[in-house]
Amino acid sequence: MSQTPKHSADAPVPTSTDVARLAGVSRATVSYVLNNTSAVRISEPTRRRVREAAEELGYVPHAAARSLRAGHSRMVLLPTAHVPVGPLYSRFLNEVQWALRALDYTVVQYGSLGLGADEAARAWAELRPVAVLSLGEIGLTPHGVRVLKRSGAKAVITLGPQRVEGAHALVMDQRAVGSAAAAHLLERGRRAIGVVVPAEPGLDLFSRPRLAGVRKAVARGGADARVEPLTMAYDEESAARLAADWRGLGLDAVYAYNDEYAQLLMRALQDAGVDVPGECAVVGADDLLLGKLLRPRLSTVHIELPTGREIAELVDRVVREPDGDVERHDLMAAHAVARESS
Amino acid sequence: MSQTPKHSADAPVPTSTDVARLAGVSRATVSYVLNNTSAVRISEPTRRRVREAAEELGYVPHAAARSLRAGHSRMVLLPTAHVPVGPLYSRFLNEVQWALRALDYTVVQYGSLGLGADEAARAWAELRPVAVLSLGEIGLTPHGVRVLKRSGAKAVITLGPQRVEGAHALVMDQRAVGSAAAAHLLERGRRAIGVVVPAEPGLDLFSRPRLAGVRKAVARGGADARVEPLTMAYDEESAARLAADWRGLGLDAVYAYNDEYAQLLMRALQDAGVDVPGECAVVGADDLLLGKLLRPRLSTVHIELPTGREIAELVDRVVREPDGDVERHDLMAAHAVARESS
Repeated sequence: MSQTPKHSADAPVPTSTDVARLAGVSRATVSYVLNNTSAVRISEPTRRRVREAAEELGYVPHAAARSLRAGHSRMVLLPTAHVPVGPLYSRFLNEVQWALRALDYTVVQYGSLGLGADEAARAWAELRPVAVLSLGEIGLTPHGVRVLKRSGAKAVITLGPQRVEGAHALVMDQRAVGSAAAAHLLERGRRAIGVVVPAEPGLDLFSRPRLAGVRKAVARGGADARVEPLTMAYDEESAARLAADWRGLGLDAVYAYNDEYAQLLMRALQDAGVDVPGECAVVGADDLLLGKLLRPRLSTVHIELPTGREIAELVDRVVREPDGDVERHDLMAAHAVARESS
Repeated sequence: MSQTPKHSADAPVPTSTDVARLAGVSRATVSYVLNNTSAVRISEPTRRRVREAAEELGYVPHAAARSLRAGHSRMVLLPTAHVPVGPLYSRFLNEVQWALRALDYTVVQYGSLGLGADEAARAWAELRPVAVLSLGEIGLTPHGVRVLKRSGAKAVITLGPQRVEGAHALVMDQRAVGSAAAAHLLERGRRAIGVVVPAEPGLDLFSRPRLAGVRKAVARGGADARVEPLTMAYDEESAARLAADWRGLGLDAVYAYNDEYAQLLMRALQDAGVDVPGECAVVGADDLLLGKLLRPRLSTVHIELPTGREIAELVDRVVREPDGDVERHDLMAAHAVARESS
């Protein structure tokens, strides 16, 4: 270059052609070396020369250019939840990403806050992922699945409470959580069971099946029992309002959606003079550490999620054989953990 | 096509050429219409024909191909934390993503769990983002910044406790949190201040400056006061071990890193018969809802984060003028919230 660029940010981005020129090899050789292609025999000195030239120029392969040439990418897209997922799911997501990386996939998360379901699917498709692994709270429609598949996604997998037509489904049946909570309360002789339904809109894909699970367990096991849905937001005022009218509801137990809502409601009940568990048993879900720190210690439902490795291996299997049967896996196991609040 | 593909997933991905052919227009026209280029005048009937053809074929523009042509992308990469960030940062991240989307950026998060700092920077560079917005707990080195800039990133912005050479820094000075906690305890007449340092490795970028902030406040305000760092993991056993030896430490106060660690330690102290706040004052940080639910109500440090819009506007400004001065913003304000535990 005869002209010195005024600003370093205006300097041209180095390309594989620059690397090839500096190393005195072909562009194809640069590509083989930097993408670790083992199918082609290239001597160690040549490999070193290419790597040194790339390092000197600051060249990094362009993932998208590579996938345009190869006709497919190694990108797995994880749509990001826009509701706080809590420590349980956060750990699970880390595990899934780790396991996919070990299988040589690039994992990116994509937030779709504020987009409609089909808009979001189109935005994901623009990135041309080879697989999409969607948590249930992101609305993925059958149309969205088709858009993604037409754009080259080999695997569209939903991981959540519901099936979506055309997608491989890993159904985590949230009804099991509600059923375990209700069965536990019925065993303890409770007969009038309140069920907290969070007022926060993003959570209804979880709270509705949990409520359905409570109803199912009560229908099965408690001829004389009843279920009362209770809307509550995750703030002190909402919990205090619910607790103030508690005795009028005639309930002797409450399944409070999860441990965090349970902590909030239990505190409000105690402040309103309602004895837990004497007058009212309280059960949460998720088996978080905080439940053991409360007094009385909080009873809960322990949820067993699949391992990250199981999920990653399924993604890889579907990517390799996209036309296998659409699988449906029931992945959720749940059991009550009895402590002092029930 | 004379041959019917055996499986739908083997069907070729529709291209803009296919759309152009079906709509009877040029590829350039397809590109103008689908990328909403307003600079070129195209009649409404033609626009409609292109959109209908795209819809019929299931064609979605390819973001990477478009950015290869344009020479730059609109992708902002947010490296993902591999430690649970807690509700405070989770809400903040949502806000940032929302605000960037409003400025027409595509935001993707990328987990770099298990990668070294320079490996991670190279992996990010492969995606050719126009901007990288890194939270502090991801180690970004000066070398990593250079790799990203050579690959076309206009803006590399760190958002965390420390500066990184070459990057724009939004310094959230965590020392302010420790200082606010310590100043509050000194005001209450406490003189021997324990400081919880989480044993979890990912958190030291936050815990070290918080400890330094405590030392600074004590050096300034308490000639006769002392500071004692206390390592504790986020589990019951670790908290119980610390509480069992508490009286031997001779402390009359503890700043417990954040509200979650404070909840854990306060419970362990109470279980060990240590009166809070009588024998020992406890202060957390982050001002989470849970602090108000504890008894005694937990004193805390309220942290004011910048708004998502402020962050997004800075990203956009640096992308447009990458060679402006490297800015350093001090973004963190913190003040103590006195409740019952101190």
